[in-house]
Amino acid sequence: MPSQEQMKAALQAYIDGFAAGDADAVLALFAEDAVVEDPVGTPEKRGEEIAEFYRGAIGMGAKLSLDTPIRGSHGSSAAMAFTVEMPGARISVIDVFTFDDEGKVTSMRAHWGPDDLVQT
Amino acid sequence: MPSQEQMKAALQAYIDGFAAGDADAVLALFAEDAVVEDPVGTPEKRGEEIAEFYRGAIGMGAKLSLDTPIRGSHGSSAAMAFTVEMPGARISVIDVFTFDDEGKVTSMRAHWGPDDLVQT
Repeated sequence: MPSQEQMKAALQAYIDGFAAGDADAVLALFAEDAVVEDPVGTPEKRGEEIAEFYRGAIGMGAKLSLDTPIRGSHGSSAAMAFTVEMPGARISVIDVFTFDDEGKVTSMRAHWGPDDLVQT
Repeated sequence: MPSQEQMKAALQAYIDGFAAGDADAVLALFAEDAVVEDPVGTPEKRGEEIAEFYRGAIGMGAKLSLDTPIRGSHGSSAAMAFTVEMPGARISVIDVFTFDDEGKVTSMRAHWGPDDLVQT
């Protein structure tokens, strides 16, 4: 099981990857068989779909800022509440990440609904 | 599928139930076959274990305050980041709730790790 520090550092690296415009750094956090559900309630993305998703979001200049400190768990999950700013929209999100024993992300599920997106 | 408003109102009612010291109001939000994992990484609670858990937490005076607005989803999940204050401890938490079609809570999973609890 990854440590709390390891999981929280990965979530911070995810934010930092967006800040740096570095999609490869974000993608390097994920295990090969990872799934991404963003937002929750839409089809899961895998493999190349995940790469396309992050290259698109980071390429359009999306930036994440934490609303409150990252939370760990007593297992292999961590979560964070943040705001994403991108051209034309601001979204309030809670992401939940799960990890494998090597500390790679096995899933990311993003909780935000239609009401949590504000056009800017 | 419950509406965003319905799910967010249920999460607010959960907070309000703690504020009012009303465990029955909190328990009334849950479906009969609900599971509670608090914190994530510990065994799931069901049925009477859930009732005992909330009667215990609310009985000891735990109070919840939102750190940032409640998030919905594009499915039947909602999530919130909050701080719980109880005698001797303050815990930073992110709860994820899932709902059935009637708007009852089918699962609650609380993300907080050992580092997210501060003794007070």
